[in-house]
This record gives sequence, C-alpha cells and structure tokens, in this order.
Amino acid sequence: MRLTRDLYNHSLTLLTDFYQLTMAYAYWKEGIAERECVFNLYFRENPFGGGYAITCGLDYIVDYLDQLKFSDSDIEFLENIKSAKGNPLFEEAFLKYLSNLKFACDVDAIPEGTVVFPHEPLIRVMGPALQSQIIETPLLNILNFQTLVATKASRIAYAAKGDQVIEFGLRRAQGVDGAIAASRAAYIGGCSSTSNVLAGKLFDIPVAGTHAHSWIMTFDTELEAFQAYADALPDNCIFLVDTYHTLDGVRNAVEVGKILRERGKEMVGIRIDSGDLAYISQQARIILDNSGFEKALIVASNDLDEKLVQSLKMQDAKISVWGIGTKLVTAYDQPALGAVYKLSAIRNDKGKWENKLKLSEQSIKVNNPGIQQVRRYYQNGKMVADMIYDIHLGTKKVNTIYHPVDATKRKTLDENVLEHRDLLVPVFRQGRKRYGFPGMQAIKRKVEDEMKKIHEGVKRFENPHVFPVGLEESLHHQKMDLILKLRKYETI
Amino acid sequence: MRLTRDLYNHSLTLLTDFYQLTMAYAYWKEGIAERECVFNLYFRENPFGGGYAITCGLDYIVDYLDQLKFSDSDIEFLENIKSAKGNPLFEEAFLKYLSNLKFACDVDAIPEGTVVFPHEPLIRVMGPALQSQIIETPLLNILNFQTLVATKASRIAYAAKGDQVIEFGLRRAQGVDGAIAASRAAYIGGCSSTSNVLAGKLFDIPVAGTHAHSWIMTFDTELEAFQAYADALPDNCIFLVDTYHTLDGVRNAVEVGKILRERGKEMVGIRIDSGDLAYISQQARIILDNSGFEKALIVASNDLDEKLVQSLKMQDAKISVWGIGTKLVTAYDQPALGAVYKLSAIRNDKGKWENKLKLSEQSIKVNNPGIQQVRRYYQNGKMVADMIYDIHLGTKKVNTIYHPVDATKRKTLDENVLEHRDLLVPVFRQGRKRYGFPGMQAIKRKVEDEMKKIHEGVKRFENPHVFPVGLEESLHHQKMDLILKLRKYETI
Repeated sequence: MRLTRDLYNHSLTLLTDFYQLTMAYAYWKEGIAERECVFNLYFRENPFGGGYAITCGLDYIVDYLDQLKFSDSDIEFLENIKSAKGNPLFEEAFLKYLSNLKFACDVDAIPEGTVVFPHEPLIRVMGPALQSQIIETPLLNILNFQTLVATKASRIAYAAKGDQVIEFGLRRAQGVDGAIAASRAAYIGGCSSTSNVLAGKLFDIPVAGTHAHSWIMTFDTELEAFQAYADALPDNCIFLVDTYHTLDGVRNAVEVGKILRERGKEMVGIRIDSGDLAYISQQARIILDNSGFEKALIVASNDLDEKLVQSLKMQDAKISVWGIGTKLVTAYDQPALGAVYKLSAIRNDKGKWENKLKLSEQSIKVNNPGIQQVRRYYQNGKMVADMIYDIHLGTKKVNTIYHPVDATKRKTLDENVLEHRDLLVPVFRQGRKRYGFPGMQAIKRKVEDEMKKIHEGVKRFENPHVFPVGLEESLHHQKMDLILKLRKYETI
Repeated sequence: MRLTRDLYNHSLTLLTDFYQLTMAYAYWKEGIAERECVFNLYFRENPFGGGYAITCGLDYIVDYLDQLKFSDSDIEFLENIKSAKGNPLFEEAFLKYLSNLKFACDVDAIPEGTVVFPHEPLIRVMGPALQSQIIETPLLNILNFQTLVATKASRIAYAAKGDQVIEFGLRRAQGVDGAIAASRAAYIGGCSSTSNVLAGKLFDIPVAGTHAHSWIMTFDTELEAFQAYADALPDNCIFLVDTYHTLDGVRNAVEVGKILRERGKEMVGIRIDSGDLAYISQQARIILDNSGFEKALIVASNDLDEKLVQSLKMQDAKISVWGIGTKLVTAYDQPALGAVYKLSAIRNDKGKWENKLKLSEQSIKVNNPGIQQVRRYYQNGKMVADMIYDIHLGTKKVNTIYHPVDATKRKTLDENVLEHRDLLVPVFRQGRKRYGFPGMQAIKRKVEDEMKKIHEGVKRFENPHVFPVGLEESLHHQKMDLILKLRKYETI
C-alpha cells in the first residue's frame, strides 16, 4: 500500500512538476543542461493582510536537497512515460544522465525564523539549469506552507500577549505531513506546545492534552468521569467542562479539585470548547476563584484565530491558555502563500552573467533581476529598512533604495549611521552542505528576538505599517532598463 | 534529519493527539481499556456550500490501521514524558500494554468515491475503548482532507462539462503529503491528470506538463525557445505563450507548429497563464483557427476554481483544458472539512449495548446514537433518500425518516417500491483486514457513476437542492428520549 510503506520509502526526487522534467530533457537535448542559472524564491504579498512573514521550512529543504538522487524506480517510472504517439518520451541517454545526477548547486537562504518581507529572496539557487529547475517545485511546496503557518502562529502569539498557545490542529490539517509540518512551523512561530505526539517526537516539541468529551460519556456522570481521570493522572488534570452544562462542569471540576488537594495534588485547570467563551470564562473564573482555585488555568478552544483571540482579550475574557487548531494549521483565511521561484540571471556562452526578468502586465509580477542578497539596516536595535542588491553590481555606503513595484517610493540609507547585516547565508556550495541545523529551540528564540526588533505598527492586523524594502540604486536602474528593452521602447 | 529519513521511516502510531494517550492511560488505569465502544466519523455540513461530498482516503486509513503498532522508539518517547512534577507521566506496565497492543477493532466504512451527505457515518469503529479512541485523530486527518479535495475536484469537473482538468497544485499544497494526498483525491474526484510526478508514480495517475516561463527566458527570443522545445519534444508541444506578449506568443507557436507539420508532427496546443482568459482565449482561437490549427488545444490556468471555470464557460471562453492548482489542492475557500468522530454506543458491564449521545446547545452538534448503518434508496437508478439506522433497532419495510436536526422534516420510504442498498461495508473484523483496494481507476469510475445518480439540483453551486437524509423512525425516537433524559426533563 501507499502511506507508510511505499510512499515513505520512496525517493522524493520525483516530488516535482512534470514540466520540470520535460524542460530538463529539453535543456539536455539543447546541450544547455549545465548552463549556470540563478533562481530566487520569494513571495509578493505578506500573508493574511499582515505586515511581515516568518521564514520556515529550510531544514526540510536542506534534507531534500542533500538526498536529491533519481532512484532506480524513479528512472523506471520515467522510462515508461509515453508520448501521445505511444513512444517513450525520454531517450535512454537522458535517463542515464539523470540517474548519474549529483546535486551541484550553490544555495543561499535566509535562516528559519527570520522576519521577511515581500520581494526578498528567501532562497537563492545558483547552478546548472537542469538541476536548479527541477528543484523549484519542492522548494516552493515546503517553504510556502511552513512560512505561512509560522507567520500565522506568530500573529496568534502576538494577539495572545504572552499567554500560552497550544496548537491542536492535527485532525483538520491537510494530510499527514500537512499536520506534522504545521506543528513544527506553529511551534517555531510562537506556540508553546502541540497535541500532535508524532511532531513532538520528531521535533522535540512539548506535547499537551488531557481528555475529550468521549471520556466523560464513558461514565454515568461527569463527576465520576473527572474523578476517574484524576485517579489516573493526578498531575495532569485539566478538566473539559462542557460536555453537558458548562458551569455545572466547572463546579464538578472544583469538587474533584478539592479531593486532589486532600491528596496533596493540584488541579491544573479546566477547558472550555464551546459556547460564548467571553461570558463563560468570566463565570468560570468566579466559580474557581470563590472556591479557592485562583491559580487554576482556563483553557479555551473552538475555531479560534488571531482576531478572535484579540477580540476575547478586549472583552476581558478570563482565558489563560489558548488552544488553536483548524484556523492555524490550515492557515484558514489564506491557505496558500503563493511564493514563486523565478529565473533572474544566466551565465552566457562567454561566461558572463546576464541578468533576466519576466514581464507582466501587472507590475507586481515583474521579477527583480540579478544575483540577489538582502541587506537589513538597524538603528538602536530596531529594523529600519531592507535593501535588495545584486552581488555583482554591489552597494554604496550611502544608498537610495527604490520600492520594487512603485519606484516613486524611495528611502536613503547611510551605513555610516546604520548598522546592517546581510540575510542570506550559504547553505550549499557546489552541492555540498554548508548548513548546520540550529535546533528548534534556537529558531524559536530567534523568532521571539526578531519580533522585538520590528516596529509595533508592522505587527498590527488592520492596515499594518509597510516596512521599507527597496532595490539598491544600480539594481533598480538595471531593472528599469531591462523592462524598457523588453517592452521595445528606447531606454532613457 | 527529518523529512525523508526520520519521518518517513517512523511508525505513524504516534500520529495522534496527546489527549488520546492520556485518555488511553486513564482507561487502562480504570480497567476499562477493553470495554467495547462504537464511534462514528461524519461531517455536519457539506463543504463549499454545496449539496454533497465525495468520500476519499479510505485506502490510506486501511494502511495506517493495518500497521498500527507502538514501535520501540514510540514507547521510549512516551517513557520520557514527564508530569508537571517531573515524574514519568505513564506507568511502565501501561507502556508494556501499549507495546503489546494488537489492533482488534471492527471497522466498517463507505467505500471511496461514494457520494455522501451530512450526518452519515463514513466510518464506524467498534472495539476496545482504548484502541477505538487513539485512532480518532489520524482517521479524521486523512478522511477530512481527501474527502474535501475529492469533492472540490468533482465540482470543478462538473463546471468544466467534460473538458479535461489537470491538477497542478504541488507547489502551493500544504506540505509534502498535503500535495500527494491532494493529487490522489483530485484524480479520484474528477481530474484527468496531475503535474505531480511522485503522485503519478505512487498512484498510477497520468502526469502532464510541458514548460515554464523560465524555459522561454533562457533563450534570446520566444521563437527560439519554442523551436528548441519542439526539437527536443516534438510530440509534447503545448507552448506557454504569455511570457512577453500573449498574442505574439500565439503567433510564435503557430510558426513552430508549421515547422512541426513539415516534419510530420503536430503541435498539441498552447497554454495561457495570465490575463483576461475569456478575451485572450477567444483571440488565440481565431489566430490558431485561421492558421489551420483548429485542433490545437488551449490550456488555461491562473488561480482558477469551479466558479471561475463556470463563469468562463458562460462567457464562451475558448478554453479546451483547465489547469487548476492552489484553489483545488488547498480547497481554498474552505480549507478544512470539519468531520468529527463521536462515541455513539458502549457495551455495559452486563454485555448490553447502550446508545450514547453528547448534548450541545447547537442542535446540529448533538450526535446521533447507535451502531449506525446507512441505507440508500433508489428509484429508476437515481438516488432518492438515505436512511441512517441502528443495526440493533433494525428497519421496517415502510419507514418514515426524520431529519437529524429538524425533526419536523420527514419522508416516507417504501422498500416495496424503492431499490436500496447499505453503504457501509466491512473493512476490518477483530483487527483483521477484510478490504481489497479496488484500484484508482475503479474508484474514479465509481465517482463518475455516482455523479450520474444524483439529481442535477444537488450539484449546483448556489442554493443546491438538499438531498433527503434522515434517521430511521425508532432511532429517531431513541435519540429524542436520550436528549430529554440528559436535559433532565421527563421523556414523553
């Protein structure tokens, strides 16, 4: 069968669009399979109408690239693909070329957990045309999704203002890895634990959970059910109180909490999974406090997202821990990021790099040319602007940056005044891994640190402040020249 | 690292919510781990505001259940989970119990590719409390997502009125398996091929694709790029015409199409990936027809979904093949199905089955009790109604069914007049597999067949006809009694 045995023992090298392989074949036939190209992976708009994104997924990508190899069964599958005429689509010699393929690209990337903005290359691939092309699809698949979920989690954590956020979306996530990758990204982005045990095992994420409605229903009364649970797990008691009547449930929890105390144990709290969370949490708080359970947590869940969390906070809901599932792991209000992977330079026959772009009637879809790097500027520890520059065109000490889409928007950056650092770091050199996984905890701390360095306005949900990102001056002028040339007008 | 090596060689037994394991522990401590329970998996509302859903994912579930076993590393992970006090949360003897666990449930399910409706049990699990509980989360994860995507694909195929639909969502899908499972479900639901090569390999789905914008940009001119592609793959020429100027692109495609003809080959068609698809496809059709390429296909893509396909059809767009990505594989307008898995019966100490339900202030959230089966009635080959009945309460030859939420809605079904069959079939008996995978092609054909058997009104997108689904009379009365008993009123 498929899921565990077949699929998971398969090479992931065929996890790509078929057109990557037909193009690969055409590159090979044309004798340009090894012509050097540069591709940039970037998104064009921040997700969720927000002001930023959090990169996530690089470690998956490094693993995929490090194991890139066409297996015998991959080659066999390709051998059997026929053209419309019924002939094999690919020549034997090409398949032999593929089976000998060794990953040889240079890859640079912005590390996981970094705050990033539209148009910035999150990954830059430089290497043979065929190779840099076929990896497009899995790079997008992995980075698109994990970046989306990490960003969503950071927004939820922002709304929760320091409260714990538990991710429990496994049952509603999009497929097995849709769940596992989401748990990983959610933890990086700001959650404190997950319900997903396998993700906990794989990624060293704390796991959390107590019991479901079905536990209550197994007993004649709710009180018996709480009592039985407390007998079994006296140190892990968060009672789900809304199976029958929520406030009666809170009172039953208090009863059992008192018995626990007699035994030297302490009820951790209660969970509410339905109803008016603002009203019920306030009523539950009163019951708990009046019974001497001032420290008992109130966990709330039920289709929450960052806007509902913010609204409940404003209503002074007495919720101490937020359980977020569906809306987080599927990024419900925008379930795809839409990052793209675009050719931006080719080395010509004479060994010289030529910068490239693709036109579009929509200016936002015209890509930036060049072998790009991102320079981030800081003042007093806060990010002030990002400059996209071409590593060959270089930079100046004092530079005017131009908005990638609307060139009338400009900003001057002075390195004599501002601190700065370059965001993309080497990940592969000629196919050899130069990347060490920093560890989940380090990435998570990085996100917390990054969130402190961006202006509050960038984080808000409605009409967030637009963080300044621009093209370095000479790159901007080159882009304008290329556009005008392709549009067949004179360049100025 | 994680993705390919670690993750994919792991047991999936821990792919569950942590509370399933704490409950499992509490069941075990309480001595009721092997008390027999019945759970039903069902959804409450059709996705996308539509009139039906297509079940999908059962084969994944069968594989998962067939391999359910706690591995040594799973047990080791659980051993190391500590309570808040720093003590191991689970006793050694419990972990030993888990490591010896052998799946022993009876599982019945509605086969993949069946048209289904809200409240119908898609899967019914009967077996030891502990086992039937821990499998809840992966069953939901798998069935929720694949059912959602198969349903979306069937809607898109319906809008496309017999035109080919190619799924190419891999780059925007939610994770690796989010893509692979989506390709599988999309094919079952109505797509004719996928761009996802690995899904093609795993599931025997035809793969499709030609080239991207980057191919064009590798050459000095578009014409050279088309020519080079045609030289390499003369039998697979669908030229992407919108890199620079779309209608010029069509003219370049025609040029190369003529050269192909001189060589005894035929251009398959063109692809348009941006702009006003209605207008441009009509203009492109004229150019193609006037140049003698009446049979050349026009493939269109660009964030399409079923409503845009329907709109383009109404506008008489000259599109012959639809490429659908993001909106299909992420089920963009409703990225989660929201199926649930609810306890509906328990065998008591005396060996007698007791039907169960959970109350809720929202009537739609009150589950149906019993050991349920679904009987589907037909007249003249068309589906007319579904009846949910309890296998112990039984059925009558002439039966009035009651809407599961609004009991004032009723319908009388007469088996003397109507044909009928029961939808749930045995999948496991006491943990032993009784299921043979019918094959992808057979499931796909089943969907086509099912779609012919439902009334046209059920398929429409706006205010679809509500297909009658109701509870069998005695089950309905039992449900009412249980609700009133739990609400502490007298039963009538």
